[in-house]
Amino acid sequence: MTVNLGASRSYPIFLGEGILPGLGDETRKRVTGGRVLVVTNPTVGSLWGREAERSLAEAGFAVYRAEIPDGEEYKTLDTAAHLYDRAFEAGLDRSCAVVALGGGVVGDVAGFTAATYMRGVPLVQVPTTLMAQVDSSVGGKVAVNHPRGKNIIGAFYQPVLVLADVGTLRTLPGRELRAGIAEVIKYGVISDAAFFGWLEENLERLLKGDPEALTYAVEMSCRIKARVVEADETEQGLRRVLNYGHTFGHALEALTGYRVYVHGEAVAVGMVAAAKLSVLLGLLDEESYSRIEQLVRRAGLPADIPADLSFEAALTCMERDKKAQDGRITFVLPEAVGRVGFYPDPPADMLRRLFS
Amino acid sequence: MTVNLGASRSYPIFLGEGILPGLGDETRKRVTGGRVLVVTNPTVGSLWGREAERSLAEAGFAVYRAEIPDGEEYKTLDTAAHLYDRAFEAGLDRSCAVVALGGGVVGDVAGFTAATYMRGVPLVQVPTTLMAQVDSSVGGKVAVNHPRGKNIIGAFYQPVLVLADVGTLRTLPGRELRAGIAEVIKYGVISDAAFFGWLEENLERLLKGDPEALTYAVEMSCRIKARVVEADETEQGLRRVLNYGHTFGHALEALTGYRVYVHGEAVAVGMVAAAKLSVLLGLLDEESYSRIEQLVRRAGLPADIPADLSFEAALTCMERDKKAQDGRITFVLPEAVGRVGFYPDPPADMLRRLFS
Ligand SMILES: NC(=O)c1ccc[n+]([C@@H]2O[C@H](COP(=O)([O-])OP(=O)(O)OC[C@H]3O[C@@H](n4cnc5c(N)ncnc54)[C@H](O)[C@@H]3O)[C@@H](O)[C@H]2O)c1
Ligand SMILES: NC(=O)c1ccc[n+]([C@@H]2O[C@H](COP(=O)([O-])OP(=O)(O)OC[C@H]3O[C@@H](n4cnc5c(N)ncnc54)[C@H](O)[C@@H]3O)[C@@H](O)[C@H]2O)c1
Ligand SMILES: [Zn+2]
Ligand SMILES: [Zn+2]
Repeated sequence: MTVNLGASRSYPIFLGEGILPGLGDETRKRVTGGRVLVVTNPTVGSLWGREAERSLAEAGFAVYRAEIPDGEEYKTLDTAAHLYDRAFEAGLDRSCAVVALGGGVVGDVAGFTAATYMRGVPLVQVPTTLMAQVDSSVGGKVAVNHPRGKNIIGAFYQPVLVLADVGTLRTLPGRELRAGIAEVIKYGVISDAAFFGWLEENLERLLKGDPEALTYAVEMSCRIKARVVEADETEQGLRRVLNYGHTFGHALEALTGYRVYVHGEAVAVGMVAAAKLSVLLGLLDEESYSRIEQLVRRAGLPADIPADLSFEAALTCMERDKKAQDGRITFVLPEAVGRVGFYPDPPADMLRRLFS
Repeated sequence: MTVNLGASRSYPIFLGEGILPGLGDETRKRVTGGRVLVVTNPTVGSLWGREAERSLAEAGFAVYRAEIPDGEEYKTLDTAAHLYDRAFEAGLDRSCAVVALGGGVVGDVAGFTAATYMRGVPLVQVPTTLMAQVDSSVGGKVAVNHPRGKNIIGAFYQPVLVLADVGTLRTLPGRELRAGIAEVIKYGVISDAAFFGWLEENLERLLKGDPEALTYAVEMSCRIKARVVEADETEQGLRRVLNYGHTFGHALEALTGYRVYVHGEAVAVGMVAAAKLSVLLGLLDEESYSRIEQLVRRAGLPADIPADLSFEAALTCMERDKKAQDGRITFVLPEAVGRVGFYPDPPADMLRRLFS
């Protein structure tokens, strides 16, 4: 699969089971320098680091590893500063690559480092969570968090290559797999009713980690995301459909101190809440709403707004959300399974009815 | 003047004496949001802050100011982190602008902040040093320093507007004016013999701060830089001509701890050294060399490599330079006044002969 962004910034996505050993050769084709810095964390490093690094070494690279601690709380400017040090120590110059081996946290912070070290060095994404394979590694958004908000500091920066081996998902904890499935469901809702139907049929295979089903789900997700990104690389308009479930999901994550929900779980709650809002506004029929809610629940994902969540706090939080333009909150609301629209500033009393 | 980088990233440069009051209107035409964050330092802020801010306020912006301490040592990731805070406090969203009011330090760190805050907000450059007017504000390079090297962390990020009022140079210390003249001389040497001749004729007017001469010199410099940048936005090839005098200049700055020379002075020494190397390699005639050296000296700029500078240390330092690709040092050497070429890895014994 290729993401087309005009001559110099298009890049391929390699996708399948057991393709990690091809990492070195594919990187060699796109990186002229002699060194690579593999950024990973201790969890992923111990599981998949050797296989990735062996492949890179066999392709002739001098391989250096930088480990960052595991956890969203380390997706910071400080971690990026540490990675600049490591890149410098490894003698990386502009012709050498940063290889992000891990989930979205590793991908985002390594990506931000690659985007800003020497004003940009080649970036290779090797996503090892379902979330990263279907979302964070594709689309060129890289970022670190700021005490004031998530992903506040970042850039648009395209990798030279994405290599997603669904085989690496074998070792992924079930909760993380389900979180990734939330984003996969999102793609069905926002733009592909047939794919949503396929998910209804094949959800159990995904939950069991069936490689063939995973490959298909990742491929469809990447295709949908790539199509959206190609049309709107820097998030001026269309790309915001990807925000379905996220306006509310981000508020939920923030208000629970990022400790209760992992991102995909909060998105799951947000998708169901947005679908409910859509019904309240007369944009979506009850049956479509039920299909969305049911698929989310069957995936073992949360679907309900917690009873003790304050409406006022959520509203304030959404107004602060960086996607708010001059204080307007734009919701992405389903109009059918497979189609969404943008709705700025829905009436506060409608929003309030989601809480009870 | 317009810098053409394809539809969405072209931007105008406004240039002249006394044009600062037009800042607000020109910004209004290009920025849809209601707020601007003016980044400056106490020196420039107290001299030109009110005039700039009044113009922005009159154009309808809510104006916030963030001051950073004066000095290259504050061009750091920490300062950028402080600016993210201020941007957040000011309620800046993606539709709002960062206005960099100051020299290259302010422009670079404010530019880096604008490039990475929320993955990029509009940037307005209001350069107030000659250095910034002829060099740092044009070309879209933004950066902060890293303990391991200058400008190690950065991005390519174009402003929406550059407004260079040569009137602001009235308050600039003479040493800073001369440092800017070093870069102006560079433009003559790398690509315009006629402009070099004009400089030989009009140097005294520039040194006295004659606004008409300054406007012409800034305009010619920007034209040359814009032409080079248009042809090579991300520094793959041609753009490196701008590095004339810098390969050695950077080493000189680094080896003297950034305390002895300001940037333009180190570049002056570097330009003369490169011209001398060119003569040694048989690429440049003695007379052209003399013209370059004389103009540098007449501008009150240093031209000699300090006697106590170690050749070995300089060589190591240049090899580390980020523009070195896989350890090669590419020199930009004059072949005539008005023309340069690239010379990778000149023989070490030739380089050594520059030191004595
Ligand atoms: N850039 C984007 O467009 C984008 C999109 C979506 C999410 N994100 C970001 O991604 C992050 C979330 O990513 P995530 O969900 O992958 O979380 P994560 O990176 O924290 O990974 C989740 C956990 O799984 C572990 N892990 C990763 N791969 C494994 C494997 N193969 N086997 C066993 N354990 C493994 C990790 O060590 C971690 O503990 C957030 O910071 C979010 O903001 C970015
Ligand atoms: N981005 C680029 O392409 C690029 C190009 C060249 C230089 N630079 C960077 O620019 C920086 C150097 O810039 P600089 O030479 O402008 O230094 P500077 O920003 O430190 O300014 C020099 C001094 O002049 C003062 N000053 C600024 N404007 C004034 C005015 N109108 N009146 C009185 N005082 C004034 C400043 O406060 C400072 O003390 C370096 O960090 C260098 O790396 C960047
Ligand atoms: Zn998401
Ligand atoms: Zn310079």
